[in-house]
Amino acid sequence: MTDSLRQAALDYHALPTPGKLSVELTTPAQTQEDLSLAYSPGVAEPVREIAKDPEAAYLYTGKGNLVAVISNGSAILGLGNLGPLASKPVMEGKSLLFKRFAGINSVDIEVDSPSPERFIQTVSDIANTFGGINLEDIKAPECFHIEEALIERCSVPVFHDDQHGTAIVTVAGMLNALEIQGKKIEDVRMVCLGAGAAATACCKLMLAAGAKKEQITMLDSRGVIHSGRTDINAYKGEWARDTEMRTLDDAIEGADVFLGVSGPDLLSAEQLSRMAPRPVVFACSNPTPEISPELAHSVRDDLIMATGRSDYPNQVNNVLCFPFIFRGALDVRAVRINEEMKLAAIEAIRKIAHLPVPDAVREGYGGVELSLGPDYILPKPIDPRLLPEVAAAVARAAVDSGAARLPYPEHYPLAPL
Amino acid sequence: MTDSLRQAALDYHALPTPGKLSVELTTPAQTQEDLSLAYSPGVAEPVREIAKDPEAAYLYTGKGNLVAVISNGSAILGLGNLGPLASKPVMEGKSLLFKRFAGINSVDIEVDSPSPERFIQTVSDIANTFGGINLEDIKAPECFHIEEALIERCSVPVFHDDQHGTAIVTVAGMLNALEIQGKKIEDVRMVCLGAGAAATACCKLMLAAGAKKEQITMLDSRGVIHSGRTDINAYKGEWARDTEMRTLDDAIEGADVFLGVSGPDLLSAEQLSRMAPRPVVFACSNPTPEISPELAHSVRDDLIMATGRSDYPNQVNNVLCFPFIFRGALDVRAVRINEEMKLAAIEAIRKIAHLPVPDAVREGYGGVELSLGPDYILPKPIDPRLLPEVAAAVARAAVDSGAARLPYPEHYPLAPL
Repeated sequence: MTDSLRQAALDYHALPTPGKLSVELTTPAQTQEDLSLAYSPGVAEPVREIAKDPEAAYLYTGKGNLVAVISNGSAILGLGNLGPLASKPVMEGKSLLFKRFAGINSVDIEVDSPSPERFIQTVSDIANTFGGINLEDIKAPECFHIEEALIERCSVPVFHDDQHGTAIVTVAGMLNALEIQGKKIEDVRMVCLGAGAAATACCKLMLAAGAKKEQITMLDSRGVIHSGRTDINAYKGEWARDTEMRTLDDAIEGADVFLGVSGPDLLSAEQLSRMAPRPVVFACSNPTPEISPELAHSVRDDLIMATGRSDYPNQVNNVLCFPFIFRGALDVRAVRINEEMKLAAIEAIRKIAHLPVPDAVREGYGGVELSLGPDYILPKPIDPRLLPEVAAAVARAAVDSGAARLPYPEHYPLAPL
Repeated sequence: MTDSLRQAALDYHALPTPGKLSVELTTPAQTQEDLSLAYSPGVAEPVREIAKDPEAAYLYTGKGNLVAVISNGSAILGLGNLGPLASKPVMEGKSLLFKRFAGINSVDIEVDSPSPERFIQTVSDIANTFGGINLEDIKAPECFHIEEALIERCSVPVFHDDQHGTAIVTVAGMLNALEIQGKKIEDVRMVCLGAGAAATACCKLMLAAGAKKEQITMLDSRGVIHSGRTDINAYKGEWARDTEMRTLDDAIEGADVFLGVSGPDLLSAEQLSRMAPRPVVFACSNPTPEISPELAHSVRDDLIMATGRSDYPNQVNNVLCFPFIFRGALDVRAVRINEEMKLAAIEAIRKIAHLPVPDAVREGYGGVELSLGPDYILPKPIDPRLLPEVAAAVARAAVDSGAARLPYPEHYPLAPL
């Protein structure tokens, strides 16, 4: 990042007031009479209603449209474990995206707990304040146990976006890329470089979308995860294959798909050249991908490539998913975000890329042609169809799978904000 | 409360959207470029700055103007222990008041912890998210230990408003009432009916303002707290007097001040008639005072009376204090809210009632005359001078007492919102 971009980013956060969010009133509060309704004595009435029936909290408080973005700062972006307070700008940014894209009120909570168990306890003690919980930037492998335990303990949906948001957008883009390449997900051989939270969540969701486990080879920093490995935790162990392959060099031979959720420049031009015809390469390491698009396209012209960056085509960007999956979940008061809802989100995101793009979106990208093809496998974040389409698909899936406490809303899909 | 007022209060909370607050953006977030500053990759810059120096969180995040209103719902208004979720409308109401009166962003957190120790742990684990913590509606005696422990553990100011906000406003009103009655706080004999959080905090602050401990008689539901009592906790024990008095009947004889923080109709006309000449009666039980103003004034015409109700003169209303004491504390980045700051708040509130009232305030109260006297011992909540005067006094006291991490601001006092 150049000095001037660096300064622009700092200025953006410092001005006009520190941070990016404010809390505002949605009801009148000028006169003595207003205040007697907002606070004592009038406020006693909703208190009594909620004491009688906890569901009344959705009628008389902001709970039903409020998501907490919660982190311990142990894996901030690609910057590592910098602690809870340093993660605050990211969590506030996530709250900003919730509001900007889905009209969801969101507040950040940075948790300074000395252990995963304590983190779980702290978050579950405050969970009922909110309508949903978005976990963020928590390092693996703790993040798996933390999410599982919180889903178990909390009565509101809990979603670790680094796992499932990434996975949903990745699989949506992957399905479109494979379609363009004329391949079926059931048939492809995939190499996943990286075995952290995002990697394992992507692979799990690939299975749910039809991929075969025996055709996925996962590698961590020590090489292929195979059944002879004794140095891996249970979460990685799930992906151990009975194979002779030991290195990326072994695994890449003839692979249809490379999914990189690892580090910069770890896929060489030579390795790329040994993949199967018409390969799909998702090089999602940020900011430096596993292989640069320039290098990749210089090696072969039959590939489709995606990265995590907004300055190349096909950005795998979580914002295509998390605002809308929560919008759908909140609108039918879902108790959890299940596989059916995730698959519905994938399908809705995938389909939008098949449709003609609204003029406003094309203009936002300099007027370039955007239609399904090697350089357009995912919708753009500013596409106004994401909100109505993804939220509606998620809400429908929640209702159909029994995760919803409300019926499918009468006035769906929603108008864009 | 009538049915129509009841319905008005419920409607106020349900419409136009459930609750009273929303989270809004203070920075642009429309274009791809905006978003690259608000979130990845630009957000990495403030993250790095905060990782280097935690104080940078006050420059690049909303922390410095953010107060959490936190409760476990164990003593909601006068309604009792209805649990955390039922307290949410009250906590949201408090957040509304923080914004309305002092421009402070505030979010509510309802904590569902099985013990005071766990509550302390949970709150201290999330405390650094905020610039300050306002505890609310936590029952005695746990509230004392909870506040003490959190002040000890947290690096931001922690303030239990039911104790100290009430005490500050009570003492401010009391000093003005005694002045009008021609009495000195050092000389008065006071009876305090009630021995809970608010009562003991009021009596403590009365001592700090000059009252003599041996002239204060406190009573709980079993009568006078005297040195022979073996049925009281340590917090009440501090107020045990070596006295023959056992009942309110005994204690009220010749008393100058009655402070009621107890229950409805506990002070009789006959008892009131036996107080000293020119007495001061604060009957703060809500909604039904210890003695009704109508009855009290029918018994004697030399008294000054205050209640907790907005429909009588002299309402003891915490909103005269908490938004402004936090405003002052935040503006000089105080590490705690100490006795000096509380006394400064008392003095500032007290003085405002001595000054001519702005036209806008008088008009808000039907044009009645408001000048220091038996029916006007405290400013009105909508008085725009409270923000600049109280915040400035508190900030100055924080700086002078060494509690502040910033110097006294250049542009103080603040303009009203």
